[in-house]
Amino acid sequence: MSVITIIGSGSMGSAMSFPARANGHTVRLVGTMLDREIIEHAKETGFHTSLKRTLPGGIDYFQFEDLDIALSGVDLIICGVSSFGVEWFGKDILTRLPDNVPVLSVTKGMLNMPDGSLKSFPLYYSELAPEMDFCAIGGPCTSYELADRDHTCVGFCGNNLETLKFCKELLETPYYHIRLTTDIEGFEFSVAMKNAYAMAVALALGLSLKDGGDVIHYNSQAALFGQSLREMLYLHKLYDYDDDNLYYGAGDLYVTIFGGRTRKIGTLLGLGHSLEYTLKELSGITLEALVIAERTGKAILTRIEEGQVSKSDFPLLLHIYDIITKKAPVEIPWKDFC
Amino acid sequence: MSVITIIGSGSMGSAMSFPARANGHTVRLVGTMLDREIIEHAKETGFHTSLKRTLPGGIDYFQFEDLDIALSGVDLIICGVSSFGVEWFGKDILTRLPDNVPVLSVTKGMLNMPDGSLKSFPLYYSELAPEMDFCAIGGPCTSYELADRDHTCVGFCGNNLETLKFCKELLETPYYHIRLTTDIEGFEFSVAMKNAYAMAVALALGLSLKDGGDVIHYNSQAALFGQSLREMLYLHKLYDYDDDNLYYGAGDLYVTIFGGRTRKIGTLLGLGHSLEYTLKELSGITLEALVIAERTGKAILTRIEEGQVSKSDFPLLLHIYDIITKKAPVEIPWKDFC
Repeated sequence: MSVITIIGSGSMGSAMSFPARANGHTVRLVGTMLDREIIEHAKETGFHTSLKRTLPGGIDYFQFEDLDIALSGVDLIICGVSSFGVEWFGKDILTRLPDNVPVLSVTKGMLNMPDGSLKSFPLYYSELAPEMDFCAIGGPCTSYELADRDHTCVGFCGNNLETLKFCKELLETPYYHIRLTTDIEGFEFSVAMKNAYAMAVALALGLSLKDGGDVIHYNSQAALFGQSLREMLYLHKLYDYDDDNLYYGAGDLYVTIFGGRTRKIGTLLGLGHSLEYTLKELSGITLEALVIAERTGKAILTRIEEGQVSKSDFPLLLHIYDIITKKAPVEIPWKDFC
Repeated sequence: MSVITIIGSGSMGSAMSFPARANGHTVRLVGTMLDREIIEHAKETGFHTSLKRTLPGGIDYFQFEDLDIALSGVDLIICGVSSFGVEWFGKDILTRLPDNVPVLSVTKGMLNMPDGSLKSFPLYYSELAPEMDFCAIGGPCTSYELADRDHTCVGFCGNNLETLKFCKELLETPYYHIRLTTDIEGFEFSVAMKNAYAMAVALALGLSLKDGGDVIHYNSQAALFGQSLREMLYLHKLYDYDDDNLYYGAGDLYVTIFGGRTRKIGTLLGLGHSLEYTLKELSGITLEALVIAERTGKAILTRIEEGQVSKSDFPLLLHIYDIITKKAPVEIPWKDFC
């Protein structure tokens, strides 16, 4: 049995304790400065207030000031921060971690570079700490359903196949299925994209509620889903990524449409609410979808300016970008899909 | 304005009257021998008993014996039969149609050839009547939602781009969006596949209801959705089809999972019911998904025997094939996805 320390006790980081404890590992859950109440409450009652589930028994809980204690003798570190915590993790935490212990990150998203390229978080971390071994998790997995032990297929990506196998050995369970890939950039790109497109598909939900009342229609959702896949395939080709990664993104897109925050953003916007209203309604929730959509939109616009791609290949992504950055009203460019 | 005759008054054929009438065309809806009551009822009341919608005003209704009258002076013929009616349409109807009028088919599916290849319906018809011009509709479109004027993006495929443009001109509306392609086989293949895989994804619905009661889980659905896309992409490569077609299939897969019959088959099987019980429960409903899954499974098995592909590339399709042809119990091969 091994010692696994999870840094960041948000929903996803904490949900990783389910497969970890199922395999009998020692699990140490460390809250960030923002997680103080979650840790306090879970320590007392075992209940996670934002995951809304009782965590597995036998977890050791730590407040952030006890990070160093939580790291002693650790075999695997899971980075459980959201995309808003990535720079903090890179700058303040990495230097405090032991060099020879792999870090497995649950964070989805990418950083965009001035030249229009996008950089995965594992690559970003590797540049800050080249001596360390970074892996990351992607693919369709909501924290709630992982906690409910629903069958889940994810991908672990990283440079070192041996490290990936080690992570898989520690965390695979009869319900948590893990595939390994060393194509970090292609994989991370595919699963990051889904946030922007899930918001796009959810616009149809709002539009359908607005038009027809309480009946949810699927033709329009499916049209946007298909267009999303099409643009994602073009993006893979543009960035020269293996299109085998697409299926992670497709699954991730599917689950994101039905689960939670991104669905709410799209639905509210589709109903005709302004971006301000939508952001206010969802205040306190981390809106990664918006950040990712803006970053990717910006990256694609750079490529368009350079004449590498045509605007007409990405009508849906660019509409989302306009909604977010220019407060454009929702007007799905249906005819541009044809 | 043109004259459009729809042969076959099932839900999909009849729903085509919505865009056709919206554009002011003369619409003649002809029932097959199986549609007698639908036509009788619609003629009297305007209400379509299986589509469960009031059809647009101004449609001329015909029983099958009046087919020849309904064909006089026609500009476009829409073939509205289900995949079970394709051979009947090919053998009994084609010879009665005017040579110089294009036929647009709504039927999805493919015929499998003894050599393990699959043949689209337009190609099958073209071989029977080489002098005629056949097109077909594919992509995500449930008849109910087309009738409700939900935004819908479909593809029209055919050999002749001019004919395709003519069909588009006649039928495009502000809610019915049409893309054109001359890659008939790749396109038809992509949209046929989705029936088999929609059933596969729906298994997760049944499994989740069986395990957890009334909460629908999406991680497992998304895992099966992702695996479906992956296998569909392999199939496109195997048959050397343009992967741009994949997005029609992806959208079609999405809408089929949420709409109707195929979802019910998968759910009942996933709940643990036998194939016999499932078929009995759904008696009277045309189960095209089963036919398509069996045909594709058979085609792939031929390719595997010939050593062209590996069994391990299609674990989900082959499991569906075993469920249908060997009464195998539902046991999702999760580990084979990794």
